[in-house]
Amino acid sequence: MSPARSENDAQRGWIVPIGGAEEKINHPEILRRFVRVAGGEDARIAVIPTASQLEETGPNYVELFESLGAGAATSLPYRTRAETERKDWLDTLERSTAVFYTGGNQLRLSTVLGGTAVATQVRRLNARGVIVGGTSAGAAILPEHMIAYGETGSTPQAGMVSLTPGLGLTNRVMGDQHFRERDRLGRLLSALAYNPFAVGLGLDEDTAAFISPDNILRVQGSGAVTVVDVSKLTYSSVADIAEGKPICMTNVVLHILPHGGSFDLNTREPTQP
Amino acid sequence: MSPARSENDAQRGWIVPIGGAEEKINHPEILRRFVRVAGGEDARIAVIPTASQLEETGPNYVELFESLGAGAATSLPYRTRAETERKDWLDTLERSTAVFYTGGNQLRLSTVLGGTAVATQVRRLNARGVIVGGTSAGAAILPEHMIAYGETGSTPQAGMVSLTPGLGLTNRVMGDQHFRERDRLGRLLSALAYNPFAVGLGLDEDTAAFISPDNILRVQGSGAVTVVDVSKLTYSSVADIAEGKPICMTNVVLHILPHGGSFDLNTREPTQP
Repeated sequence: MSPARSENDAQRGWIVPIGGAEEKINHPEILRRFVRVAGGEDARIAVIPTASQLEETGPNYVELFESLGAGAATSLPYRTRAETERKDWLDTLERSTAVFYTGGNQLRLSTVLGGTAVATQVRRLNARGVIVGGTSAGAAILPEHMIAYGETGSTPQAGMVSLTPGLGLTNRVMGDQHFRERDRLGRLLSALAYNPFAVGLGLDEDTAAFISPDNILRVQGSGAVTVVDVSKLTYSSVADIAEGKPICMTNVVLHILPHGGSFDLNTREPTQP
Repeated sequence: MSPARSENDAQRGWIVPIGGAEEKINHPEILRRFVRVAGGEDARIAVIPTASQLEETGPNYVELFESLGAGAATSLPYRTRAETERKDWLDTLERSTAVFYTGGNQLRLSTVLGGTAVATQVRRLNARGVIVGGTSAGAAILPEHMIAYGETGSTPQAGMVSLTPGLGLTNRVMGDQHFRERDRLGRLLSALAYNPFAVGLGLDEDTAAFISPDNILRVQGSGAVTVVDVSKLTYSSVADIAEGKPICMTNVVLHILPHGGSFDLNTREPTQP
Protein backbone atom coordinates (compact mmCIF):
# COMPACT_ATOMS: atom_id res chain seq x y z
CA MET A 1 0.00 0.00 0.00
CA SER A 2 3.00 2.33 -0.03
CA PRO A 3 3.68 4.36 -3.14
CA ALA A 4 5.95 2.81 -5.72
CA ARG A 5 9.51 2.69 -4.44
CA SER A 6 10.71 5.10 -7.01
CA GLU A 7 13.05 7.49 -5.28
CA ASN A 8 16.27 7.70 -7.28
CA ASP A 9 15.43 4.36 -8.77
CA ALA A 10 16.23 4.46 -12.46
CA GLN A 11 14.11 1.35 -13.06
CA ARG A 12 10.91 3.31 -12.59
CA GLY A 13 9.02 4.09 -15.79
CA TRP A 14 8.35 7.57 -17.14
CA ILE A 15 5.45 9.52 -15.64
CA VAL A 16 3.73 11.83 -18.14
CA PRO A 17 1.01 14.25 -16.97
CA ILE A 18 -0.58 16.31 -19.78
CA GLY A 19 -2.55 19.53 -19.16
CA GLY A 20 -5.55 18.48 -21.25
CA ALA A 21 -6.75 19.33 -24.78
CA GLU A 22 -3.56 18.03 -26.36
CA GLU A 23 -3.35 18.47 -30.12
CA LYS A 24 -4.62 15.31 -31.84
CA ILE A 25 -4.90 16.17 -35.54
CA ASN A 26 -2.35 18.64 -36.92
CA HIS A 27 0.65 18.46 -34.62
CA PRO A 28 0.10 15.63 -32.12
CA GLU A 29 3.69 15.91 -30.87
CA ILE A 30 2.89 15.04 -27.24
CA LEU A 31 1.10 11.80 -28.08
CA ARG A 32 3.74 11.00 -30.72
CA ARG A 33 6.48 11.33 -28.10
CA PHE A 34 4.42 9.22 -25.69
CA VAL A 35 4.24 6.45 -28.31
CA ARG A 36 7.99 6.70 -28.92
CA VAL A 37 8.86 6.41 -25.21
CA ALA A 38 6.37 3.52 -24.93
CA GLY A 39 8.37 1.57 -27.51
CA GLY A 40 7.15 2.79 -30.91
CA GLU A 41 6.22 -0.18 -33.06
CA ASP A 42 6.81 -2.45 -30.05
CA ALA A 43 4.48 -0.37 -27.88
CA ARG A 44 1.41 -2.02 -26.34
CA ILE A 45 -0.64 0.80 -24.85
CA ALA A 46 -3.50 0.19 -22.40
CA VAL A 47 -6.00 3.07 -22.55
CA ILE A 48 -8.16 3.54 -19.42
CA PRO A 49 -11.08 5.87 -20.27
CA THR A 50 -12.82 5.53 -16.88
CA ALA A 51 -12.81 9.29 -16.20
CA SER A 52 -14.90 9.92 -19.30
CA GLN A 53 -18.59 9.19 -19.74
CA LEU A 54 -18.36 9.14 -23.54
CA GLU A 55 -18.23 5.67 -25.04
CA GLU A 56 -16.04 6.78 -27.93
CA THR A 57 -13.22 8.14 -25.75
CA GLY A 58 -11.37 4.83 -25.40
CA PRO A 59 -11.70 3.74 -29.05
CA ASN A 60 -10.67 7.24 -30.22
CA TYR A 61 -7.38 7.08 -28.31
CA VAL A 62 -6.76 3.52 -29.50
CA GLU A 63 -7.10 4.68 -33.10
CA LEU A 64 -4.97 7.75 -32.45
CA PHE A 65 -2.11 5.82 -30.82
CA GLU A 66 -2.12 3.24 -33.61
CA SER A 67 -2.11 5.97 -36.26
CA LEU A 68 0.95 7.45 -34.54
CA GLY A 69 2.86 4.19 -34.90
CA ALA A 70 2.11 2.25 -31.70
CA GLY A 71 2.35 -1.51 -32.24
CA ALA A 72 -0.95 -2.02 -30.44
CA ALA A 73 -3.42 -0.18 -28.25
CA THR A 74 -6.39 -1.52 -26.29
CA SER A 75 -9.16 0.23 -24.40
CA LEU A 76 -10.02 -1.08 -20.92
CA PRO A 77 -13.28 0.77 -20.15
CA TYR A 78 -13.64 0.09 -16.41
CA ARG A 79 -17.03 1.43 -15.28
CA THR A 80 -17.56 -0.36 -11.94
CA ARG A 81 -15.39 -1.61 -9.08
CA ALA A 82 -16.53 -5.17 -9.87
CA GLU A 83 -14.99 -4.94 -13.36
CA THR A 84 -11.56 -4.27 -11.87
CA GLU A 85 -11.34 -8.02 -11.13
CA ARG A 86 -11.72 -9.02 -14.82
CA LYS A 87 -8.88 -11.40 -15.50
CA ASP A 88 -8.64 -10.74 -19.27
CA TRP A 89 -8.25 -6.98 -18.72
CA LEU A 90 -5.67 -7.49 -15.95
CA ASP A 91 -3.76 -9.75 -18.34
CA THR A 92 -3.82 -7.02 -21.01
CA LEU A 93 -2.51 -4.54 -18.44
CA GLU A 94 0.25 -6.96 -17.40
CA ARG A 95 1.52 -7.18 -20.99
CA SER A 96 1.45 -3.41 -21.60
CA THR A 97 4.48 -1.20 -22.20
CA ALA A 98 2.40 1.89 -21.41
CA VAL A 99 -0.77 2.93 -19.59
CA PHE A 100 -2.76 6.04 -20.53
CA TYR A 101 -5.62 7.61 -18.53
CA THR A 102 -7.97 9.83 -20.56
CA GLY A 103 -9.63 13.02 -19.35
CA GLY A 104 -13.05 13.40 -17.72
CA ASN A 105 -13.74 13.46 -13.97
CA GLN A 106 -10.80 12.48 -11.73
CA LEU A 107 -13.15 11.41 -8.93
CA ARG A 108 -14.61 8.80 -11.23
CA LEU A 109 -11.10 7.38 -11.63
CA SER A 110 -10.40 7.37 -7.89
CA THR A 111 -13.81 5.99 -6.86
CA VAL A 112 -13.81 3.19 -9.45
CA LEU A 113 -10.11 2.23 -9.35
CA GLY A 114 -8.93 3.32 -5.87
CA GLY A 115 -7.84 0.39 -3.70
CA THR A 116 -8.42 -2.17 -6.48
CA ALA A 117 -6.12 -4.64 -8.19
CA VAL A 118 -5.95 -2.26 -11.18
CA ALA A 119 -4.51 0.61 -9.12
CA THR A 120 -2.01 -1.71 -7.47
CA GLN A 121 -0.96 -3.22 -10.77
CA VAL A 122 -0.43 0.11 -12.53
CA ARG A 123 1.82 1.15 -9.64
CA ARG A 124 3.79 -2.08 -9.89
CA LEU A 125 4.08 -1.71 -13.66
CA ASN A 126 5.41 1.84 -13.35
CA ALA A 127 7.84 0.76 -10.61
CA ARG A 128 9.32 -1.82 -12.97
CA GLY A 129 9.66 0.48 -15.99
CA VAL A 130 6.31 0.87 -17.73
CA ILE A 131 5.46 4.45 -18.79
CA VAL A 132 2.23 5.82 -17.29
CA GLY A 133 0.61 9.01 -18.52
CA GLY A 134 -2.68 10.79 -18.65
CA THR A 135 -4.39 13.96 -19.75
CA SER A 136 -6.47 16.38 -17.68
CA ALA A 137 -8.28 14.19 -15.07
CA GLY A 138 -5.93 11.40 -16.15
CA ALA A 139 -2.95 13.58 -15.22
CA ALA A 140 -4.44 14.69 -11.89
CA ILE A 141 -4.80 11.09 -10.73
CA LEU A 142 -1.13 10.10 -11.20
CA PRO A 143 0.49 11.42 -7.97
CA GLU A 144 -0.22 10.48 -4.35
CA HIS A 145 -2.01 13.79 -3.71
CA MET A 146 -4.55 15.00 -6.25
CA ILE A 147 -6.48 18.24 -6.61
CA ALA A 148 -10.09 17.02 -6.85
CA TYR A 149 -11.71 20.42 -7.30
CA GLY A 150 -11.35 24.06 -6.31
CA GLU A 151 -11.95 27.69 -7.16
CA THR A 152 -10.28 29.90 -9.77
CA GLY A 153 -8.03 32.93 -9.31
CA SER A 154 -4.35 33.55 -8.79
CA THR A 155 -4.34 34.43 -5.06
CA PRO A 156 -4.28 31.42 -2.73
CA GLN A 157 -7.13 31.33 -0.21
CA ALA A 158 -7.79 29.04 2.73
CA GLY A 159 -10.23 26.33 1.72
CA MET A 160 -10.25 27.09 -2.01
CA VAL A 161 -8.92 23.66 -2.97
CA SER A 162 -9.94 20.08 -2.17
CA LEU A 163 -7.31 17.36 -2.14
CA THR A 164 -7.93 13.62 -2.24
CA PRO A 165 -5.64 10.61 -2.62
CA GLY A 166 -4.57 9.90 -6.20
CA LEU A 167 -3.12 6.69 -7.60
CA GLY A 168 0.22 7.27 -5.90
CA LEU A 169 2.89 6.87 -8.58
CA THR A 170 4.91 9.64 -6.89
CA ASN A 171 4.48 12.13 -4.07
CA ARG A 172 7.26 14.32 -5.37
CA VAL A 173 4.92 16.43 -7.50
CA MET A 174 1.33 17.65 -7.32
CA GLY A 175 -0.24 18.87 -10.54
CA ASP A 176 -2.97 21.08 -11.86
CA GLN A 177 -4.22 20.99 -15.46
CA HIS A 178 -5.80 23.52 -17.88
CA PHE A 179 -3.59 25.80 -15.82
CA ARG A 180 -3.43 29.09 -17.70
CA GLU A 181 -6.77 28.54 -19.41
CA ARG A 182 -8.68 28.19 -16.11
CA ASP A 183 -6.60 30.56 -13.93
CA ARG A 184 -5.51 27.98 -11.38
CA LEU A 185 -2.34 29.37 -9.81
CA GLY A 186 -4.21 30.23 -6.60
CA ARG A 187 -5.52 26.76 -6.00
CA LEU A 188 -2.15 25.14 -6.73
CA LEU A 189 -0.45 27.53 -4.28
CA SER A 190 -3.18 26.80 -1.70
CA ALA A 191 -2.62 23.06 -2.06
CA LEU A 192 1.11 23.53 -1.47
CA ALA A 193 0.56 25.95 1.44
CA TYR A 194 -0.95 23.20 3.62
CA ASN A 195 2.21 21.12 3.58
CA PRO A 196 5.05 22.56 1.50
CA PHE A 197 6.81 19.33 0.56
CA ALA A 198 5.83 18.56 -3.03
CA VAL A 199 6.75 20.41 -6.22
CA GLY A 200 3.72 22.02 -7.87
CA LEU A 201 3.22 21.61 -11.63
CA GLY A 202 0.82 23.93 -13.43
CA LEU A 203 0.22 22.30 -16.82
CA ASP A 204 -1.24 24.38 -19.63
CA GLU A 205 -3.40 22.75 -22.26
CA ASP A 206 -1.54 20.93 -25.06
CA THR A 207 1.50 20.78 -22.76
CA ALA A 208 3.09 17.79 -21.05
CA ALA A 209 5.70 17.12 -18.40
CA PHE A 210 7.77 14.08 -19.40
CA ILE A 211 9.29 12.95 -16.09
CA SER A 212 12.14 10.52 -16.66
CA PRO A 213 13.09 7.57 -14.44
CA ASP A 214 15.88 9.72 -12.96
CA ASN A 215 13.39 12.49 -12.10
CA ILE A 216 14.23 15.04 -14.79
CA LEU A 217 11.08 16.78 -16.04
CA ARG A 218 11.10 17.89 -19.67
CA VAL A 219 8.42 20.12 -21.18
CA GLN A 220 6.75 19.26 -24.48
CA GLY A 221 3.94 21.24 -26.11
CA SER A 222 2.59 24.60 -27.16
CA GLY A 223 2.03 26.09 -23.67
CA ALA A 224 4.14 26.10 -20.53
CA VAL A 225 4.63 24.17 -17.33
CA THR A 226 4.68 26.47 -14.29
CA VAL A 227 6.92 24.81 -11.70
CA VAL A 228 6.15 25.97 -8.15
CA ASP A 229 9.04 25.23 -5.78
CA VAL A 230 8.19 25.76 -2.10
CA SER A 231 11.36 24.19 -0.69
CA LYS A 232 12.58 27.68 0.31
CA LEU A 233 9.21 28.75 1.76
CA THR A 234 9.76 30.70 4.97
CA TYR A 235 6.13 31.08 6.05
CA SER A 236 2.59 29.87 5.34
CA SER A 237 -0.32 31.38 7.29
CA VAL A 238 -2.92 28.75 6.39
CA ALA A 239 -3.02 27.24 9.89
CA ASP A 240 -4.11 30.53 11.41
CA ILE A 241 -6.60 32.16 9.03
CA ALA A 242 -10.31 31.80 8.33
CA GLU A 243 -11.74 30.07 5.28
CA GLY A 244 -11.83 32.33 2.23
CA LYS A 245 -9.04 34.61 3.46
CA PRO A 246 -5.89 35.04 1.34
CA ILE A 247 -2.97 32.87 2.45
CA CYS A 248 0.34 34.58 3.23
CA MET A 249 3.24 32.68 1.63
CA THR A 250 6.80 34.03 1.49
CA ASN A 251 9.65 32.91 -0.78
CA VAL A 252 7.74 30.83 -3.28
CA VAL A 253 9.96 30.17 -6.32
CA LEU A 254 8.33 29.94 -9.78
CA HIS A 255 9.76 28.73 -13.07
CA ILE A 256 7.72 29.17 -16.26
CA LEU A 257 9.06 26.55 -18.63
CA PRO A 258 7.92 26.32 -22.26
CA HIS A 259 8.77 23.58 -24.75
CA GLY A 260 12.35 22.39 -24.36
CA GLY A 261 12.75 23.61 -20.80
CA SER A 262 13.50 21.16 -18.02
CA PHE A 263 13.56 20.85 -14.24
CA ASP A 264 15.60 18.50 -12.09
CA LEU A 265 13.30 17.23 -9.33
CA ASN A 266 16.31 16.01 -7.32
CA THR A 267 18.23 19.28 -7.17
CA ARG A 268 15.25 21.57 -7.97
CA GLU A 269 17.30 23.29 -10.69
CA PRO A 270 15.58 24.55 -13.88
CA THR A 271 17.19 24.63 -17.32
CA GLN A 272 15.95 27.01 -20.01
CA PRO A 273 15.19 25.71 -23.53
CA MET B 1 10.36 12.42 -1.07
CA SER B 2 8.58 9.05 -1.13
CA PRO B 3 7.03 7.75 2.07
CA ALA B 4 9.20 5.56 4.22
CA ARG B 5 9.76 2.20 2.54
CA SER B 6 7.89 0.38 5.19
CA GLU B 7 5.73 -2.16 3.42
CA ASN B 8 6.24 -5.53 5.09
CA ASP B 9 9.55 -4.26 6.34
CA ALA B 10 9.96 -5.37 9.93
CA GLN B 11 12.72 -2.82 10.46
CA ARG B 12 10.22 0.01 10.51
CA GLY B 13 9.47 1.46 13.95
CA TRP B 14 6.10 1.39 15.66
CA ILE B 15 3.53 4.02 14.65
CA VAL B 16 1.25 5.09 17.50
CA PRO B 17 -1.68 7.44 16.85
CA ILE B 18 -3.69 8.39 19.97
CA GLY B 19 -7.23 9.80 19.85
CA GLY B 20 -6.47 12.76 22.14
CA ALA B 21 -7.13 13.47 25.84
CA GLU B 22 -5.17 10.43 26.96
CA GLU B 23 -5.14 9.84 30.69
CA LYS B 24 -2.07 11.47 32.24
CA ILE B 25 -2.58 11.28 36.03
CA ASN B 26 -4.44 8.24 37.35
CA HIS B 27 -4.02 5.52 34.74
CA PRO B 28 -1.59 6.76 32.06
CA GLU B 29 -1.40 3.31 30.47
CA ILE B 30 -1.07 4.55 26.89
CA LEU B 31 1.91 6.81 27.62
CA ARG B 32 3.41 4.13 29.88
CA ARG B 33 3.26 1.61 27.04
CA PHE B 34 4.73 4.21 24.67
CA VAL B 35 7.70 4.64 27.04
CA ARG B 36 8.14 0.87 27.29
CA VAL B 37 8.17 0.38 23.49
CA ALA B 38 10.57 3.35 23.22
CA GLY B 39 13.09 1.50 25.39
CA GLY B 40 12.07 2.21 29.00
CA GLU B 41 15.05 3.46 30.96
CA ASP B 42 17.05 3.53 27.71
CA ALA B 43 14.38 5.63 25.99
CA ARG B 44 15.33 9.06 24.64
CA ILE B 45 12.05 10.72 23.61
CA ALA B 46 11.94 13.84 21.43
CA VAL B 47 8.72 15.76 22.09
CA ILE B 48 7.56 18.07 19.27
CA PRO B 49 4.88 20.45 20.62
CA THR B 50 4.57 22.51 17.42
CA ALA B 51 0.80 21.90 17.08
CA SER B 52 0.16 23.59 20.43
CA GLN B 53 0.34 27.30 21.18
CA LEU B 54 0.81 26.76 24.91
CA GLU B 55 4.40 27.10 26.07
CA GLU B 56 3.99 24.51 28.80
CA THR B 57 2.88 21.68 26.47
CA GLY B 58 6.40 20.50 25.64
CA PRO B 59 7.80 20.69 29.20
CA ASN B 60 4.66 18.96 30.56
CA TYR B 61 5.15 15.92 28.31
CA VAL B 62 8.87 15.84 29.11
CA GLU B 63 8.06 15.67 32.83
CA LEU B 64 5.33 13.09 32.22
CA PHE B 65 7.53 10.76 30.14
CA GLU B 66 10.35 10.98 32.67
CA SER B 67 7.95 10.27 35.55
CA LEU B 68 6.84 7.15 33.64
CA GLY B 69 10.38 5.83 33.52
CA ALA B 70 11.82 7.16 30.26
CA GLY B 71 15.61 7.54 30.42
CA ALA B 72 15.37 11.03 28.96
CA ALA B 73 12.92 13.31 27.18
CA THR B 74 13.56 16.62 25.44
CA SER B 75 11.17 19.19 24.01
CA LEU B 76 11.95 20.58 20.53
CA PRO B 77 9.51 23.52 20.29
CA TYR B 78 9.72 24.32 16.56
CA ARG B 79 7.73 27.51 15.92
CA THR B 80 9.06 28.62 12.50
CA ARG B 81 10.33 26.97 9.35
CA ALA B 82 13.72 28.64 9.92
CA GLU B 83 14.13 26.78 13.23
CA THR B 84 13.87 23.44 11.46
CA GLU B 85 17.50 23.96 10.37
CA ARG B 86 18.80 24.17 13.98
CA LYS B 87 21.71 21.74 14.16
CA ASP B 88 21.47 21.07 17.91
CA TRP B 89 17.79 20.07 17.66
CA LEU B 90 18.43 17.88 14.59
CA ASP B 91 21.21 16.18 16.58
CA THR B 92 18.79 15.54 19.46
CA LEU B 93 16.33 14.03 16.99
CA GLU B 94 19.04 11.85 15.47
CA ARG B 95 19.86 10.32 18.88
CA SER B 96 16.21 9.67 19.82
CA THR B 97 14.59 6.28 20.28
CA ALA B 98 11.13 7.85 20.00
CA VAL B 99 9.40 10.93 18.61
CA PHE B 100 6.11 12.25 20.02
CA TYR B 101 3.89 14.96 18.50
CA THR B 102 1.54 16.69 20.95
CA GLY B 103 -1.98 17.88 20.20
CA GLY B 104 -3.09 21.31 18.98
CA ASN B 105 -3.67 22.29 15.34
CA GLN B 106 -2.46 19.78 12.73
CA LEU B 107 -2.11 22.52 10.10
CA ARG B 108 0.47 24.20 12.31
CA LEU B 109 2.49 20.98 12.22
CA SER B 110 2.21 20.62 8.45
CA THR B 111 2.89 24.29 7.64
CA VAL B 112 5.92 24.55 9.96
CA LEU B 113 7.46 21.10 9.40
CA GLY B 114 6.22 20.07 5.92
CA GLY B 115 9.05 19.69 3.40
CA THR B 116 11.77 20.47 5.98
CA ALA B 117 14.75 18.48 7.24
CA VAL B 118 12.76 17.64 10.38
CA ALA B 119 9.95 15.93 8.45
CA THR B 120 12.48 14.02 6.35
CA GLN B 121 14.49 12.96 9.39
CA VAL B 122 11.48 11.70 11.35
CA ARG B 123 10.55 9.58 8.34
CA ARG B 124 14.06 8.19 8.11
CA LEU B 125 14.13 7.50 11.85
CA ASN B 126 10.84 5.61 11.70
CA ALA B 127 12.01 3.65 8.65
CA ARG B 128 15.03 2.44 10.59
CA GLY B 129 13.14 1.44 13.74
CA VAL B 130 12.38 4.50 15.85
CA ILE B 131 8.85 4.62 17.31
CA VAL B 132 6.82 7.68 16.28
CA GLY B 133 3.55 8.61 17.98
CA GLY B 134 1.28 11.52 18.61
CA THR B 135 -2.00 12.53 20.13
CA SER B 136 -4.95 14.33 18.51
CA ALA B 137 -3.37 16.71 15.92
CA GLY B 138 -0.13 14.81 16.50
CA ALA B 139 -1.88 11.58 15.47
CA ALA B 140 -3.57 13.14 12.43
CA ILE B 141 -0.21 14.22 11.01
CA LEU B 142 1.42 10.76 10.97
CA PRO B 143 0.05 9.23 7.72
CA GLU B 144 0.48 10.39 4.13
CA HIS B 145 -3.13 11.64 3.99
CA MET B 146 -4.47 13.71 6.88
CA ILE B 147 -7.93 14.99 7.71
CA ALA B 148 -7.31 18.72 8.22
CA TYR B 149 -10.86 19.68 9.14
CA GLY B 150 -14.48 18.79 8.45
CA GLU B 151 -18.05 18.66 9.66
CA THR B 152 -19.65 16.39 12.26
CA GLY B 153 -22.30 13.71 11.84
CA SER B 154 -22.36 10.04 11.00
CA THR B 155 -23.61 10.21 7.39
CA PRO B 156 -20.90 10.86 4.81
CA GLN B 157 -21.54 13.88 2.60
CA ALA B 158 -19.71 15.19 -0.47
CA GLY B 159 -17.35 17.97 0.54
CA MET B 160 -17.71 17.53 4.33
CA VAL B 161 -14.02 16.75 4.84
CA SER B 162 -10.77 18.45 3.84
CA LEU B 163 -7.66 16.35 3.29
CA THR B 164 -4.09 17.60 3.14
CA PRO B 165 -0.73 15.84 3.01
CA GLY B 166 0.53 14.61 6.37
CA LEU B 167 4.07 13.64 7.33
CA GLY B 168 3.87 10.41 5.35
CA LEU B 169 4.98 7.61 7.69
CA THR B 170 2.43 5.31 6.04
CA ASN B 171 -0.39 5.55 3.52
CA ARG B 172 -1.93 2.32 4.72
CA VAL B 173 -4.18 4.06 7.26
CA MET B 174 -5.99 7.38 7.55
CA GLY B 175 -7.09 8.42 11.02
CA ASP B 176 -9.58 10.59 12.79
CA GLN B 177 -9.32 11.52 16.47
CA HIS B 178 -11.80 12.42 19.27
CA PHE B 179 -13.89 10.03 17.21
CA ARG B 180 -16.89 9.14 19.35
CA GLU B 181 -16.74 12.37 21.34
CA ARG B 182 -17.04 14.57 18.23
CA ASP B 183 -19.25 12.30 16.07
CA ARG B 184 -16.80 11.91 13.20
CA LEU B 185 -17.81 8.70 11.42
CA GLY B 186 -19.31 10.67 8.51
CA ARG B 187 -16.17 12.62 7.77
CA LEU B 188 -13.96 9.52 7.98
CA LEU B 189 -16.29 7.66 5.59
CA SER B 190 -16.30 10.68 3.26
CA ALA B 191 -12.50 10.75 3.23
CA LEU B 192 -12.41 7.06 2.29
CA ALA B 193 -15.17 7.45 -0.33
CA TYR B 194 -12.96 9.60 -2.57
CA ASN B 195 -10.38 6.85 -3.02
CA PRO B 196 -11.11 3.63 -1.14
CA PHE B 197 -7.55 2.38 -0.68
CA ALA B 198 -6.57 3.17 2.92
CA VAL B 199 -7.91 1.67 6.15
CA GLY B 200 -9.81 4.23 8.24
CA LEU B 201 -9.09 4.44 11.98
CA GLY B 202 -11.58 6.25 14.21
CA LEU B 203 -9.72 6.82 17.49
CA ASP B 204 -11.72 7.64 20.60
CA GLU B 205 -10.19 9.82 23.29
CA ASP B 206 -7.81 8.06 25.71
CA THR B 207 -7.41 5.32 23.10
CA ALA B 208 -4.39 4.43 20.99
CA ALA B 209 -3.57 2.20 18.03
CA PHE B 210 -0.14 0.64 18.53
CA ILE B 211 0.87 -0.37 14.99
CA SER B 212 3.77 -2.80 15.05
CA PRO B 213 6.58 -3.02 12.49
CA ASP B 214 4.79 -6.01 10.93
CA ASN B 215 1.57 -3.98 10.58
CA ILE B 216 -0.53 -5.48 13.37
CA LEU B 217 -2.61 -2.81 15.09
CA ARG B 218 -3.32 -3.33 18.81
CA VAL B 219 -5.79 -1.23 20.76
CA GLN B 220 -4.86 0.27 24.15
CA GLY B 221 -7.09 2.54 26.23
CA SER B 222 -10.50 3.19 27.70
CA GLY B 223 -12.42 3.78 24.43
CA ALA B 224 -12.42 1.98 21.10
CA VAL B 225 -10.79 2.12 17.71
CA THR B 226 -13.35 1.94 14.89
CA VAL B 227 -11.63 0.27 11.94
CA VAL B 228 -13.26 1.11 8.59
CA ASP B 229 -12.31 -1.38 5.89
CA VAL B 230 -13.33 -0.32 2.38
CA SER B 231 -11.43 -3.02 0.52
CA LYS B 232 -14.74 -4.73 -0.32
CA LEU B 233 -16.50 -1.50 -1.30
CA THR B 234 -18.66 -2.10 -4.37
CA TYR B 235 -19.75 1.50 -5.02
CA SER B 236 -19.07 5.10 -4.04
CA SER B 237 -21.24 7.86 -5.55
CA VAL B 238 -18.99 10.79 -4.61
CA ALA B 239 -17.89 11.46 -8.20
CA ASP B 240 -21.46 12.09 -9.30
CA ILE B 241 -23.23 14.04 -6.55
CA ALA B 242 -23.42 17.68 -5.50
CA GLU B 243 -21.64 19.11 -2.48
CA GLY B 244 -23.53 18.56 0.75
CA LYS B 245 -25.45 15.53 -0.56
CA PRO B 246 -25.14 12.17 1.25
CA ILE B 247 -22.64 9.78 -0.34
CA CYS B 248 -23.85 6.31 -1.29
CA MET B 249 -21.34 3.65 -0.20
CA THR B 250 -22.06 -0.09 -0.30
CA ASN B 251 -20.26 -2.90 1.54
CA VAL B 252 -18.27 -0.86 4.04
CA VAL B 253 -16.94 -3.18 6.77
CA LEU B 254 -16.62 -1.85 10.34
CA HIS B 255 -14.85 -3.33 13.36
CA ILE B 256 -15.29 -1.67 16.75
CA LEU B 257 -12.25 -2.75 18.75
CA PRO B 258 -11.83 -1.92 22.44
CA HIS B 259 -8.74 -2.47 24.58
CA GLY B 260 -7.01 -5.75 23.71
CA GLY B 261 -8.52 -6.03 20.24
CA SER B 262 -6.28 -6.11 17.20
CA PHE B 263 -6.38 -5.79 13.43
CA ASP B 264 -3.96 -7.18 10.87
CA LEU B 265 -3.38 -4.47 8.27
CA ASN B 266 -1.90 -7.02 5.86
CA THR B 267 -4.81 -9.48 5.79
CA ARG B 268 -7.46 -7.02 7.10
CA GLU B 269 -8.52 -9.57 9.73
CA PRO B 270 -9.71 -8.39 13.18
CA THR B 271 -9.17 -10.28 16.44
CA GLN B 272 -11.43 -9.71 19.43
CA PRO B 273 -9.90 -9.07 22.89
